Amino acid sequence: MRIIVIGATGTIGRGVAKLLASNDHEVVEVGFRTGAFHVDIASKASINKLFQDAGSFDAVVCAAGLAKFGGLDELTDDDYTLALTNKLMGQVNLVRLGRSYINDNGSFTLTSGVLSHKPIPGSSSISMVNAGIEGFVRAAALEMQRGLRVNAVSPVWVKETMEAMGMDSSGGMPAEKVAFAYKESVAGQRNGEVLDVREFG
Amino acid sequence: MRIIVIGATGTIGRGVAKLLASNDHEVVEVGFRTGAFHVDIASKASINKLFQDAGSFDAVVCAAGLAKFGGLDELTDDDYTLALTNKLMGQVNLVRLGRSYINDNGSFTLTSGVLSHKPIPGSSSISMVNAGIEGFVRAAALEMQRGLRVNAVSPVWVKETMEAMGMDSSGGMPAEKVAFAYKESVAGQRNGEVLDVREFG
Repeated sequence: MRIIVIGATGTIGRGVAKLLASNDHEVVEVGFRTGAFHVDIASKASINKLFQDAGSFDAVVCAAGLAKFGGLDELTDDDYTLALTNKLMGQVNLVRLGRSYINDNGSFTLTSGVLSHKPIPGSSSISMVNAGIEGFVRAAALEMQRGLRVNAVSPVWVKETMEAMGMDSSGGMPAEKVAFAYKESVAGQRNGEVLDVREFG
Repeated sequence: MRIIVIGATGTIGRGVAKLLASNDHEVVEVGFRTGAFHVDIASKASINKLFQDAGSFDAVVCAAGLAKFGGLDELTDDDYTLALTNKLMGQVNLVRLGRSYINDNGSFTLTSGVLSHKPIPGSSSISMVNAGIEGFVRAAALEMQRGLRVNAVSPVWVKETMEAMGMDSSGGMPAEKVAFAYKESVAGQRNGEVLDVREFG
């Protein structure tokens, strides 16, 4: 398969790209400023340009999406808007727009996150959009045509991210293990599911 | 308790207002154009004005929020924006802003809906925001102070709504039964929960 991986130079995206490539898939690496193609998922024009430029593809994996951490008293309207327009609608729009470009029997794999159901103080905007992604995926799956599928992967805390943030990473999952859930979404038959990375890694 | 019910003249809101009033609570009925006070939940200024004008209160129940039904090919950007700014951020902002007005040990009860986890074709924007409300509530509950609480009630299809839409209403729940979950959220001790109306009605 020819697979577009958005956020391919990020921690999770790198793990996903590596795993898919090692399984004989052709990976098209996409980033905001890095990779073979660039995209700003908050812009529909940028998403359309990506799909027009990237050529024929069988799957889209998105491991990108901005949302800000912060207490209820700290988060501004702009912070909520960022989460809604970038991590949530950015990924939703990949599906809405990508449906007319992707090959038959293709798949979309979005990224939510464990905070949707296991919040921590400061995660209100992130928990909100992670859950929103999952709600969208469950519903959109019912309307896929031409054998298309759409799922979300819900990562737990990634070991490399925790290390980069100076956190105790002993409970984290290495990105190379997180990647297995993405591979299952792309190569399996699931549709409308939220894949917990702990079941696959 | 003195309880602000937003959407008090809607199908569910009427049932909630009636049940709370019959339990010796003082209900402040609020609507978009009807009721003792008016509010447009999509406007932070309108929400602030409501809380300033309404006087002392112990609970906010929101049974209002717009989002549009429609297929993936039919829903426009504006339709998604409506769901995000009205049903989702409108209710989120009731909590964000209401926290500085509400009495100690007060509660916020928002409305999500069964489509968050049981979607049907055409529910993508509604399922998205319903799930988002639930994600926000779970997270925001962790940061409540002064004994405040926040929950979401997830209604199933309401009998009266189905009748008004000309649907077979045999599987619907009457609004007066749906109201019991709202009463539990207001009068009980729950925090950060999503109350399925079928457990209480």
